[in-house]
Amino acid sequence: MRDPRYDILFTPVQIGPVTAKNRFFQVPHCNGMGHAMPLAHAAMREVKAEGGWAVVSTEECEIHPSSDLTPYVEARLWDDRDIPALALMCDKVHAHGALAAVELSHNGPTASNLYSREVLIGPSHQPSKYGYPSQARAMSLKDIAEYRRWHREAAVRAMRAGMDIVYVYAAHDLSLPMHFLQRRRNQRTDAYGGSLENRVRLLREVLEDTRDAIGHRCGVALRFATEELLGGGGVELNEAKDIVAMLAELPDLWDVNVAAWYNDSVPSRFAAEGAQEPFVAFVKQVTSKPVVGVGRFTSPDTMVSQIKRGVLDLIGAARPSIADPFLPAKVEQGRIDDIRECIGCNICVSGDMTISPIRCTQNPTMGEEWRKDWHPERIAPASKPGRVLVVGGGPAGLEAARALGQRGYEVSLAEARKELGGRVTREARLPGLAEWARVRDWRLGQIHKLTNVSVYLDSALTAQDVLDFGAEHVVLATGCHWRRDGYGRSHGAPIPGFVDNPKVYTLDDLMDGRIPAGRIAVLDDDGFYYASIAAEQLHAHGCEVVYVTPEDTLAPWSQNTLDYRHIRKRLAKLGIEVIVSHTVTGYDGEILTLEHAWEDRQQPLAVDAVLTVTARLPNDALYQQLLEREADWADAGTHSVRNIGDSDAPGLIAHAVYAGHRYARELGEPVTGEVAFKRHFHAAGT
Amino acid sequence: MRDPRYDILFTPVQIGPVTAKNRFFQVPHCNGMGHAMPLAHAAMREVKAEGGWAVVSTEECEIHPSSDLTPYVEARLWDDRDIPALALMCDKVHAHGALAAVELSHNGPTASNLYSREVLIGPSHQPSKYGYPSQARAMSLKDIAEYRRWHREAAVRAMRAGMDIVYVYAAHDLSLPMHFLQRRRNQRTDAYGGSLENRVRLLREVLEDTRDAIGHRCGVALRFATEELLGGGGVELNEAKDIVAMLAELPDLWDVNVAAWYNDSVPSRFAAEGAQEPFVAFVKQVTSKPVVGVGRFTSPDTMVSQIKRGVLDLIGAARPSIADPFLPAKVEQGRIDDIRECIGCNICVSGDMTISPIRCTQNPTMGEEWRKDWHPERIAPASKPGRVLVVGGGPAGLEAARALGQRGYEVSLAEARKELGGRVTREARLPGLAEWARVRDWRLGQIHKLTNVSVYLDSALTAQDVLDFGAEHVVLATGCHWRRDGYGRSHGAPIPGFVDNPKVYTLDDLMDGRIPAGRIAVLDDDGFYYASIAAEQLHAHGCEVVYVTPEDTLAPWSQNTLDYRHIRKRLAKLGIEVIVSHTVTGYDGEILTLEHAWEDRQQPLAVDAVLTVTARLPNDALYQQLLEREADWADAGTHSVRNIGDSDAPGLIAHAVYAGHRYARELGEPVTGEVAFKRHFHAAGT
Repeated sequence: MRDPRYDILFTPVQIGPVTAKNRFFQVPHCNGMGHAMPLAHAAMREVKAEGGWAVVSTEECEIHPSSDLTPYVEARLWDDRDIPALALMCDKVHAHGALAAVELSHNGPTASNLYSREVLIGPSHQPSKYGYPSQARAMSLKDIAEYRRWHREAAVRAMRAGMDIVYVYAAHDLSLPMHFLQRRRNQRTDAYGGSLENRVRLLREVLEDTRDAIGHRCGVALRFATEELLGGGGVELNEAKDIVAMLAELPDLWDVNVAAWYNDSVPSRFAAEGAQEPFVAFVKQVTSKPVVGVGRFTSPDTMVSQIKRGVLDLIGAARPSIADPFLPAKVEQGRIDDIRECIGCNICVSGDMTISPIRCTQNPTMGEEWRKDWHPERIAPASKPGRVLVVGGGPAGLEAARALGQRGYEVSLAEARKELGGRVTREARLPGLAEWARVRDWRLGQIHKLTNVSVYLDSALTAQDVLDFGAEHVVLATGCHWRRDGYGRSHGAPIPGFVDNPKVYTLDDLMDGRIPAGRIAVLDDDGFYYASIAAEQLHAHGCEVVYVTPEDTLAPWSQNTLDYRHIRKRLAKLGIEVIVSHTVTGYDGEILTLEHAWEDRQQPLAVDAVLTVTARLPNDALYQQLLEREADWADAGTHSVRNIGDSDAPGLIAHAVYAGHRYARELGEPVTGEVAFKRHFHAAGT
Repeated sequence: MRDPRYDILFTPVQIGPVTAKNRFFQVPHCNGMGHAMPLAHAAMREVKAEGGWAVVSTEECEIHPSSDLTPYVEARLWDDRDIPALALMCDKVHAHGALAAVELSHNGPTASNLYSREVLIGPSHQPSKYGYPSQARAMSLKDIAEYRRWHREAAVRAMRAGMDIVYVYAAHDLSLPMHFLQRRRNQRTDAYGGSLENRVRLLREVLEDTRDAIGHRCGVALRFATEELLGGGGVELNEAKDIVAMLAELPDLWDVNVAAWYNDSVPSRFAAEGAQEPFVAFVKQVTSKPVVGVGRFTSPDTMVSQIKRGVLDLIGAARPSIADPFLPAKVEQGRIDDIRECIGCNICVSGDMTISPIRCTQNPTMGEEWRKDWHPERIAPASKPGRVLVVGGGPAGLEAARALGQRGYEVSLAEARKELGGRVTREARLPGLAEWARVRDWRLGQIHKLTNVSVYLDSALTAQDVLDFGAEHVVLATGCHWRRDGYGRSHGAPIPGFVDNPKVYTLDDLMDGRIPAGRIAVLDDDGFYYASIAAEQLHAHGCEVVYVTPEDTLAPWSQNTLDYRHIRKRLAKLGIEVIVSHTVTGYDGEILTLEHAWEDRQQPLAVDAVLTVTARLPNDALYQQLLEREADWADAGTHSVRNIGDSDAPGLIAHAVYAGHRYARELGEPVTGEVAFKRHFHAAGT
């Protein structure tokens, strides 16, 4: 079964009084369900334990109402009433022989207290984070004592809930022990400010408190950021080395990373597997305690290398454990090809950011474990197997074909192009997105193992072809194309001069290799990643690029995937001019006319061509033709025709994969009413 | 009791089969509690009914999972499982003789479906609102039929929950019947697109469906936006007149307003009481049905005028009913002076925007009715009355003094200045904020009626003065001041050249009448309203103003109070130059050095002075001195000394009022554990 090369990944690791059965460690990660959806949260964590992770952690866990993170939904241990929700998770994690861990946090000036209405606290007087119109007050010594008491009491509650590992949190710029380290947040002149020893004092005390409170039964982990990349106002690597030396043997486990979140969970577009090594490799040289770190590790060879080279003792993972909760089991079973590798798109992060349950491009069952009873590996066999024709081999079609095949349907997949993957294949060729091809590759790998799925390339079908094929079920996943007319998110009409103008290009042109030359305006009326990728691509081809958007910031939705700052820096580095707050009102082939969104003025922009990124239209002609011939379906033996993914409503690759998966899950199953899932309802508390 | 002039406000109005007992109508408004906090929501609505509103409405109510508004928390009627939460509200509203109304909504392309994962639907293919990376698909005729079925079924569920009035919603750019009216959203070529008659078809059908389904027992209201201020892409007044004529007698009630929300609930800074009249006055000329409209009405004389002049039949209110749930009762009882008038600051809106329970600057009990058992009019008498010294007559001190007086304490309020109101008085003199003085005026009016509250002006106190006074309880509400050193939200250190530079001004200087001349940079490292007000004020004094901010947009938090667009337009109209994405790194008295946030370049800006708006520091010297003398408290007869509001942690006026109120509520009461309120917990659904 297991490749002996990987044996080292399955040796146990002692963490204080508890033992991790192997080296796979699901570090704390947010999920948008938290205290609001405890059953959904517990079921999601259970699947990780079932998939072989030795340790399964919560997200950050609020220890007190003065650390209320509303609107963000994390874990909560404000008082005893919060124990049952976390006990539920512990029980489910323990059922699979894994350890449960909780990341206790008081977020100080990075909390909101929008719900609790408590006054924020911090090392010194300072504005709260995220723009909230409030300030934190400088903590008195009494406040510090209270905070320590809250942390101790939360640790005890965590132990009572069944937690095996309790984190002290000093990472991501999100918790008080870290805020006391930061010069920009700590201007105290007492024993908790000034010298490094003073700034470390609170962290040391909280570590000691936690050991005293629960160290006899639980491992005490320290999550610690070694670098913030903010210069002297933040934690810097050199100082971090001193801090680790000062506290080396105090925690039972070091969990180390780079802050803030956007530097920790960097999208694959901007960082490769293992990118944190230069910032965390020193830790193992300084402590005898086990060290866990992250790096979007999906390759067992890389994992082994991390351990053998003495970088890490435990392979930490958030995103890879989301994309494939069964990653450890698959390594153990010698099923390396079956690993569904994280693509680093950070759609998972957007769940937390938008206060909605976590989603994953690669794993459409993520967040659905409880409410839809979806399992990432298992799927009910078809109650009545039959023939299904899948038209289109993009992300929706591939996932539909794969999951239908898994269920035992006889599947034929027809793709019009000479290659599979659809938009995934095409977008993966754009700058920085190569890893996105894993969406295609994993599905192709799985499909090749299924004898009941046939794939036909270069097979554009007409409605007649489809009816002649005579499948019982037809599902169309024929994708979409970018609009050329200027109709977009903010502009609800075509832009004069765009239609039929050969100097107006779309992303489809770029992906087809039709690339303009000279000075090019990229018009972004979409707001996510596409336009910035187009700008990069054009720049790579020697164009002089001007990025124009009616929004007041560039690519605003990319904040939700942590791309935003990286995009800004990348475009700046490439010297791409950015013009925000300007609507495009016309293009005559030479002059693009811009109108200021707020001021009453126009601006001409001389450009050789326009790359317009505004909105998309489904390729649904075949679907519409089949609908028109509904009377012929019965004769053809066809019971159902469905349209899914981008050819239904253009969206994310994640939406397409989900649509394909959902189609496959629901085919032949009874309809379950208007609401196709279980919900949490909100009973009274006291 | 009641002034006969106001009798007309208390005549009943027939709304289809139900009768409103008077003319006071709480129109639908969001509140950030909705389906997530049904007990809290019901208690909040109950207080309105108790306060005399004849009709009490929900917020918008999702009728189907394909209209999932996550992250925003509104009402929900997806299936029968959602009935109990709304039945709870109906029972509580009925207990006070009021009617309950529900605003049914399918938000089409303005939904998110982030939670439900359904595909968005709309009149035509189009990007979703709010930047979500998804598109709505063009509804087929079958989709339209399904939508109508969902709406009918939701109306029946609403009736079963006990609703007396059911809204069809076509306002705020938030629901399908409106989206079909809009050319920018509707490019259909079938019977539902093109001509006005076609674009109105769906609205007419849904009105008819709703009457058919529940018209025998419930009034059918139509909430309709008459103008979007977007030109031909949106609903325009001229077309709206035709639409009202086409549907004139179909609903039992017209609820008319201006879209979108930022044009409906305009902050007082940008619109006065009754500002919508030019857009809605025509409706009563066209229909025989009663008409309700809003205008932030708090003056009963204005209300009477609206009715007598034939503008409205019912006085709609959202914000005034939040600031004073007992407004109708006070008019009826001839207690006009007791009305707590809305100040139009829109902090209430920010609750919905930040997915947290509704708050109100004027009414600190808003949102606390259930979880803290706070009532806007009643407060428990002190269990052990005593003497309280309140130091500082700003919003926190005034509210503390008022509420302590209401509880029966012997209160002395000492104010250092010659006038009361603190920051409220000072800020109300800035451009556009005059109505904010109502925070002071209402409290002064109430205090003047209390014989047990004494006010001392021009009374700066030392610690010795406080101890000599010998009150049992001392509460300090001594406010804060703006930092002069450049330390701010993004800049965690002083800016070189700022401290002790006479050319660096703060908002306090402006409010004290120290106003620079010439070309002035306003540095906004705060992000809410202050800097834009400062820019306006300087402009009014003849300065040439350059607005500089390290943020990528101006005043980002003002999105949450609907100020943002109005601020942008105001500054543009005044010709104020805006420089975003620039950090200030120094000022030598002539040149302000700017550093681009993303690009590696500096920019010198020659200015005669800098108005720095970055962060604030508490005026807590007296508190610190008293803490140092804690050993002397007992001799002075003082049991407790507390510091509240801006002198504890600078925040909003709303925070200060809440702090004062909370102090007064809690004084002498037993402490209730770490969590001082009831919570909703989240049980399993099915």
